[in-house]
Amino acid sequence: MSFATMKIAIAQINPKVGDIAGNAALVEAFARRAEALGADLAVFPELALTGYPPLDLVENKDFIDENLRALKRLAELKLKVALAVGFVDRNPAAKGKALLNSIALLHGGRVAARRAKSLLPAYDIFDEARYFEPAAENRPLKFKGALIGLTICEDIWARTALLPSRLLYRNNPVKTLCGARASIVINISASPFYRGKGAKRRAILSGLAKKMRAHIIYVNQAGANDELIFDGNSFALSPAGRITARAAAFGEDLVLVDTDAPAAAAAAPQDETAEIRAALTLGIRDYFRKLGFKHAVLGLSGGIDSAVVAALAADALGPGNVTGVLMPSEYTSAQSGTDALKIARNLGINTRTVPIKNIYKAFLGELGAGGPGKEVSLTMQNLQARSRGSILMALANANNWLALTTGNKSEIAIGYCTLYGDTAGALAPIADLFKTEVYRLAAHFNLGGEVIPQAVIERPPTAELKPGQKDQDDLPPYAELDEIIRLYLEENRGPAEIIRRGFGRDLVLSVLRRVEANEYKRKQLPIGLKVTEKSFGYGRRMPIVKTTGFIK
Amino acid sequence: MSFATMKIAIAQINPKVGDIAGNAALVEAFARRAEALGADLAVFPELALTGYPPLDLVENKDFIDENLRALKRLAELKLKVALAVGFVDRNPAAKGKALLNSIALLHGGRVAARRAKSLLPAYDIFDEARYFEPAAENRPLKFKGALIGLTICEDIWARTALLPSRLLYRNNPVKTLCGARASIVINISASPFYRGKGAKRRAILSGLAKKMRAHIIYVNQAGANDELIFDGNSFALSPAGRITARAAAFGEDLVLVDTDAPAAAAAAPQDETAEIRAALTLGIRDYFRKLGFKHAVLGLSGGIDSAVVAALAADALGPGNVTGVLMPSEYTSAQSGTDALKIARNLGINTRTVPIKNIYKAFLGELGAGGPGKEVSLTMQNLQARSRGSILMALANANNWLALTTGNKSEIAIGYCTLYGDTAGALAPIADLFKTEVYRLAAHFNLGGEVIPQAVIERPPTAELKPGQKDQDDLPPYAELDEIIRLYLEENRGPAEIIRRGFGRDLVLSVLRRVEANEYKRKQLPIGLKVTEKSFGYGRRMPIVKTTGFIK
Repeated sequence: MSFATMKIAIAQINPKVGDIAGNAALVEAFARRAEALGADLAVFPELALTGYPPLDLVENKDFIDENLRALKRLAELKLKVALAVGFVDRNPAAKGKALLNSIALLHGGRVAARRAKSLLPAYDIFDEARYFEPAAENRPLKFKGALIGLTICEDIWARTALLPSRLLYRNNPVKTLCGARASIVINISASPFYRGKGAKRRAILSGLAKKMRAHIIYVNQAGANDELIFDGNSFALSPAGRITARAAAFGEDLVLVDTDAPAAAAAAPQDETAEIRAALTLGIRDYFRKLGFKHAVLGLSGGIDSAVVAALAADALGPGNVTGVLMPSEYTSAQSGTDALKIARNLGINTRTVPIKNIYKAFLGELGAGGPGKEVSLTMQNLQARSRGSILMALANANNWLALTTGNKSEIAIGYCTLYGDTAGALAPIADLFKTEVYRLAAHFNLGGEVIPQAVIERPPTAELKPGQKDQDDLPPYAELDEIIRLYLEENRGPAEIIRRGFGRDLVLSVLRRVEANEYKRKQLPIGLKVTEKSFGYGRRMPIVKTTGFIK
Repeated sequence: MSFATMKIAIAQINPKVGDIAGNAALVEAFARRAEALGADLAVFPELALTGYPPLDLVENKDFIDENLRALKRLAELKLKVALAVGFVDRNPAAKGKALLNSIALLHGGRVAARRAKSLLPAYDIFDEARYFEPAAENRPLKFKGALIGLTICEDIWARTALLPSRLLYRNNPVKTLCGARASIVINISASPFYRGKGAKRRAILSGLAKKMRAHIIYVNQAGANDELIFDGNSFALSPAGRITARAAAFGEDLVLVDTDAPAAAAAAPQDETAEIRAALTLGIRDYFRKLGFKHAVLGLSGGIDSAVVAALAADALGPGNVTGVLMPSEYTSAQSGTDALKIARNLGINTRTVPIKNIYKAFLGELGAGGPGKEVSLTMQNLQARSRGSILMALANANNWLALTTGNKSEIAIGYCTLYGDTAGALAPIADLFKTEVYRLAAHFNLGGEVIPQAVIERPPTAELKPGQKDQDDLPPYAELDEIIRLYLEENRGPAEIIRRGFGRDLVLSVLRRVEANEYKRKQLPIGLKVTEKSFGYGRRMPIVKTTGFIK
């Protein structure tokens, strides 16, 4: 290739949203390390100074000023290494949105170049058209004898439309760079993790490198912000489309790329369940750390969901920083208690027992509900769940802990949960895992020896809110339920298509109607960590008051 | 003017989101009434067939098909009156978003013309760039000898940028229509109500009519969908900018506009508090009606907030369909009970008393908290609130009622509320009213005689969660608190600007930090009816995990 050898540092940092001072300090620290390694250029993720996604914080003028001042200060450090840093710029044009999602090249004590993002995603969790004006064009720039293209996340995904039959964008900034024969294309990203995304990224970017006959330096954000988990996994590609360097998964990293170096050895294929486990652990850890909390509390029922959440929390925070609360009622079996204590012992977490019997009785007494021989109504079941929710919150309040909820995606989808009961808490770690996937994760925890007791895995799931209750009396089999919901939600299939896959018509319609009827519950759920292409979170925006006549 | 006289019916309907069959039936019924009145053209609101906002429902293929079939069926009715109807069209182009926010002219048994929206709002509650591709141009069409422009909502607001210093959009579809000398401009809208919006609309459209020398027919949606309240208030303007017809506020209406008719008499100026009261009443009524519920339950504390919510609910649902629940504790004063019963008597609503003392004691007993002489900690205060929340939910569950919450905007802003306690419920009617505005609304209810007892209005607000508690011991005076929050939130002023208005620096910083620190609570609140330009709802999207260094 016709350019000088260059050493580029992938600076895969974990910024905190809004913490401009902290993020700028992080950039400086990584920049100095890159300089010590002899890098010509250190590349940071998209919106590294604000953290991604800053959401409506960018609508505050003072916030934008602060990020511009931080950029200027970084430039004025006059490091030998040049920096490519994501920031929010003001739009100099008189028309259009006031802001740009930008990348600056800091070099020679100044902002040597700026480029703005051309393709602004506005789907799923992305709202960039809300904040930013797209760049009309993106021309490469000269740096140390090479023509470099500076692109931002979606800019290189133009040909990967959401819908296979159409292109989502009218223009493709990569074409201009290609036409101008850029030899290195930098892409700074804040690309949230979901199941299978890594392989998708590598395939697309490898094809692009070959097509452009250019090096690609892909730098992704690491760390979790609210429901989004950024997996890092940055990498560099040779013009032959081979990986020449890769950064850590689910953590910060600094990796030096030599554009003359040969291709790296192929990485071992990543196990999907292992990835999800790493993602959720990071999601919990960053939620607590970035908010300044240390200790998690959760209800430990003896069931599989709370066992898995406890195991994730123990990994994320340390077992000593997790308290599992047993809250038995008259409907709780002895087995549940035994299992819960065994889980806690295996994990090394703390336990506490707070029976709900007296509280539940006090509620029934004042409400004139229940009584001997009477059926345990849904109202009474909810009262038990809400007593437990209040106990967990009281423990969290009194000890400065955060409560974790244990609901999975299957339950959340169809509203098999009690608002202010089992949904009470700050964070829902497995909200984006179907029940069948929770079992898979449990099995993963047991790979090196029993962590989650076999009895817990084998026992039919039950809410234990009335005598002899089993999930499978109230719900379709999870294998069917999960697949129907997955097709509807993650693959966006309509009822007719799902029925054609071999599911019974009545089953499909009742499941989908139940999904749509329970939007009011989801409105009030805590944040759920996202690990699939479509979770019940920020990326799915459904009316509560609605009719869904198309489900027929 | 050089066009034939035309009779145009403003068909101000109240569609339900997603109810395509129901909405199409509503369109047909209004169309037949318009025909009977001799109208040449009946004009319906934006996205009349799907209801506004359909949100992610439009991502379902079957949903789009259903709306297209409904449009075709309406065309095939072959009515004598032509119809201008909002619907979701498919984008025929190969590039760009798959959908268009469109208007169809149904005439002569077919879809005679289609136009797509050019300006897609992507701010506050609007997410249209998420779903739709903008139209590149908008040419007028011939109808009965006149050149007509068909525009959709934002299309005519191009020159009303959000920020005074810049234009939000690069193009202005009105210019094309103006250049082509359209003599009638139709605008179909789904324009949510907020305080003062009516006057803004009239001023802008009146200026536009004069500039274009064209009639303007402005047809807005009526009714509430989730947090948004659509006030109707459609009107017609002569080329001189004078109102020639107007439709009802906060309800459906059918009004015939004769383009030859003289200007109508000026309407009496609308009282802002009366408008807000009408808006909230409609918001509650439509929430219940469209979900199929009849009866509301709420905690009646004897305070001003619950009194006002009860009064609104009594108006919206009928007093017999409202139950106020008194839930006294050992900290509840006798005065509170007396006042609560008086409010209920004045309104004619039902009451029920469920003391929380035994429940609260049971919680404290199991948790080993409290005890004689001990201070009532925040944890214990929260337990009282959560006991009440569980009682209200139990009554709602058992009777198929919906619970209303009584939190106001001041409380929600700074998190002066208990999650799963006083925030438990389906709908928050006064979530967008500051405490000072709640008093104003209370005074409005008393205009025709005492509804909300004077004692309730005069008594200093208290949560009564510990002995001698007063809001003003925990909070700054509401007059100051409300104005600081209003400047920050509704006017988007930064800390320095607010301090310059004369508020103490420490006060401003502590209030704004408290606003941002309580995002986690707002994540889990029920829907709050929106009546200002910026509410804590769908239109404000703030990270939970964040640092706000700019508040300094």
